[in-house]
Amino acid sequence: MPVSTPNSERSFKLGDYNPQEYTAEYKLLYLQGLVADGSYNAITEFLAKQSEYEIANLLESFPTQDRLLIWAHVAEPIKGRVLAELEVDTRQPLMENISSTEISVLTQDLDAQDVFEILDTVTETVRTSVMATLDEDIRLQVNKLDTYMDWEVGSYMDPDIIQVHDDITLGQVQTWLRGNIDLLDDQSQELLVVDKSQHLLGLLSLVDLIKHEQNALVSSYIDNAITINDRLDIQDAAAIFRSEDIRFAPVINSHGELVGQLNGEDIMEIIQDDVDSTMRNLAGVSQDEELFAPILTSAKSRSIWLGINLCTALLAAIVIGQFEAVLAKVVALAILMPVVASMGGIAGSQTLTVVIRGMAMGQIGGSNRWWLFNKELWVGAINGIIWAIIMAIIAQMWFHDSKISAVIGCAIAINMTAANVSGISIPLMLKRMNIDPALSASVILTTVTDIVGFMSFLGLASILLL
Amino acid sequence: MPVSTPNSERSFKLGDYNPQEYTAEYKLLYLQGLVADGSYNAITEFLAKQSEYEIANLLESFPTQDRLLIWAHVAEPIKGRVLAELEVDTRQPLMENISSTEISVLTQDLDAQDVFEILDTVTETVRTSVMATLDEDIRLQVNKLDTYMDWEVGSYMDPDIIQVHDDITLGQVQTWLRGNIDLLDDQSQELLVVDKSQHLLGLLSLVDLIKHEQNALVSSYIDNAITINDRLDIQDAAAIFRSEDIRFAPVINSHGELVGQLNGEDIMEIIQDDVDSTMRNLAGVSQDEELFAPILTSAKSRSIWLGINLCTALLAAIVIGQFEAVLAKVVALAILMPVVASMGGIAGSQTLTVVIRGMAMGQIGGSNRWWLFNKELWVGAINGIIWAIIMAIIAQMWFHDSKISAVIGCAIAINMTAANVSGISIPLMLKRMNIDPALSASVILTTVTDIVGFMSFLGLASILLL
Repeated sequence: MPVSTPNSERSFKLGDYNPQEYTAEYKLLYLQGLVADGSYNAITEFLAKQSEYEIANLLESFPTQDRLLIWAHVAEPIKGRVLAELEVDTRQPLMENISSTEISVLTQDLDAQDVFEILDTVTETVRTSVMATLDEDIRLQVNKLDTYMDWEVGSYMDPDIIQVHDDITLGQVQTWLRGNIDLLDDQSQELLVVDKSQHLLGLLSLVDLIKHEQNALVSSYIDNAITINDRLDIQDAAAIFRSEDIRFAPVINSHGELVGQLNGEDIMEIIQDDVDSTMRNLAGVSQDEELFAPILTSAKSRSIWLGINLCTALLAAIVIGQFEAVLAKVVALAILMPVVASMGGIAGSQTLTVVIRGMAMGQIGGSNRWWLFNKELWVGAINGIIWAIIMAIIAQMWFHDSKISAVIGCAIAINMTAANVSGISIPLMLKRMNIDPALSASVILTTVTDIVGFMSFLGLASILLL
Repeated sequence: MPVSTPNSERSFKLGDYNPQEYTAEYKLLYLQGLVADGSYNAITEFLAKQSEYEIANLLESFPTQDRLLIWAHVAEPIKGRVLAELEVDTRQPLMENISSTEISVLTQDLDAQDVFEILDTVTETVRTSVMATLDEDIRLQVNKLDTYMDWEVGSYMDPDIIQVHDDITLGQVQTWLRGNIDLLDDQSQELLVVDKSQHLLGLLSLVDLIKHEQNALVSSYIDNAITINDRLDIQDAAAIFRSEDIRFAPVINSHGELVGQLNGEDIMEIIQDDVDSTMRNLAGVSQDEELFAPILTSAKSRSIWLGINLCTALLAAIVIGQFEAVLAKVVALAILMPVVASMGGIAGSQTLTVVIRGMAMGQIGGSNRWWLFNKELWVGAINGIIWAIIMAIIAQMWFHDSKISAVIGCAIAINMTAANVSGISIPLMLKRMNIDPALSASVILTTVTDIVGFMSFLGLASILLL
């Protein structure tokens, strides 16, 4: 249990501070202590020193019951921002007991994107009454966001853009910004430059705005911009951000009109979520399952994958069943059988991991697929033969039967080669069929390595030993 | 094969552009076409339109031989930046034939961090001679970076900081920046504020610099900063960035002196690499294995894990060997055996994935470990019983032997419960022993689910069927 108060004030300490006190885990332990002791004042005090992001992360680290308790101690003015930071599953129960009047208060100073997030969790009636209390500006922006599907760029963009004309001076831009202090928020890095007819010309960065002669024209410092279409899939937009190494992009609609902007930070979140979802898909955990989900929710969400796995395991069992005769005669086969399947499984998932990652980075396509296929074939064959020899020697020492040793050696070499080849072919085929490889490749791969493993092992055994 | 030229100029197109042409994969296909046709002029032309990051990514998407060809067509002035962007494994072969004079030319206009990256790949002699040709400023900064271990914050920081005093006006800061145009680069978002004795007071954001009255003092707009110690592990620094939701931090040494700054983008890269490495660790692929590594390199790098897996698979085989008698008598057991292990394996890895992700986010610790343990126990038991019943029914229809059905049902329930409990206990124990859970948890888990599965299944069978 921690003894000192986490160093969480937004101030810096020189020299002797303890970096550990800044970690999420340390804060979690500290808050757990306060909750266990029922030190409510201390909870309020502690939460007042945390960022909205941090509070959201802490709330997500407690079971539902404690969440409600902690939530009651979050300072009113930041509750809106915290709600916007939370995952939907965590936000929902916290919002169940909030009246629409309270929601109106919470959403008071939020930007459109945050309000949009929060209103996503409420009923249509509440939504309508909250919308009526919003500022005209924000309401229009929220309505704009609402016209997009949740996978479209439009629903992730910031509709609040700052436009400047190209024929004014840098100094005039600065003066204008100073007169409209709400315009620039801490996240801003770029202004959008438009001509007289509101056509986008490019970007003006804050750095350029500051560092050049103030009576120079905006038009001299326009950076070219890659625009993103509002109906584009957000995943594709993330790929463009990554491959073009950009941190900001104007969003345009199909008529070429500027409708918003995409920020690097939102895209980083998409990329982060994407890797997370790949990991979850590979393990067969549903996207929405949060760590502290109730028991029945988790049990249910994991069932689908277990069911699919049962089917493939039964398929493997049926294969084994075809070789009853040889199994009944040579019990050593039953003992060694899982080794063959297991080595193939690992070899295949090694390949699969490298390939799926390479696909996500856009590094696999066209002619290099054959290069990679060929490479994996050889890696599989080489490793297969090495481990086949090692395993054959072990089997020989164990069962003193050269036929059994030969059978397991051959089966391992065959299965590991097949596993590596499958590790690259399966995701490529799935992609061609427009199926997410991460979601289904590992279960198909296991099925292949089990079936090839059992079939080659028991099949060879039937030939040699019966 | 693509027919139109990828839309890769840094200019935007309104309306009718094809977003697909911006994707890394499209560019890869296009470049592959050029390489296959030997259209060398077209390669030069194409590469001239790509960002350094994009060229690095493309180089990494080709086998070594093609890399050298493409590298020869990269424009000289950007070769240095491209090298800095590359992974070490890809950079090494490209640098083998470059003389130290050429390296000096390449590193001419790079910042210290990039020069440091590149010199990391060369021999001591080349390093010394290149260092001698560097600007005084850059040389000192590179030397500073070089004093740190490669996991310390110091080796990731930007040593080139912009300091301003607190007692001047915002207008004076802007005038000064305009007179020193090299100071602000496109990445800049914050200036570091120091007092007369060079002590750090906090940060001044470019946004604040622009939007407030220009005769206001810097001291009125100082934002508090969380400082990061230069000897801190970069992973811990990444955790602080994440939990404090900061995008920039001054770096100080143990004497409290300001030595550099950490930028959000570098940290994002660390976090990204961290998730990647978790995925690789879970699958038993070494960190350095790149997609296009030569066959023998890949084969060797995957061997360790295959060897470990063979040992655990043999352990499972030994367990099975203990039950030879019952296996010899009832061949159905050999057929159904893998189903038990497989269901346990999936259930366990579902839990493991959720837990390892939660750990990385700092959401697991203290009292919630028991809550989670309890939750996983119940999820395992509930799903275990459901699938036990289903599997027992299937076994009954298949073998018409109620004892076998009872045995497989019980074994699945036991194994799935044990799997879920292991899925949370193993990573927690590993963490306590300061071992990276992602690296070893999955192999231990598989061993547990195999052994518990075979032991419960065959053990119960021995009791009921012998």
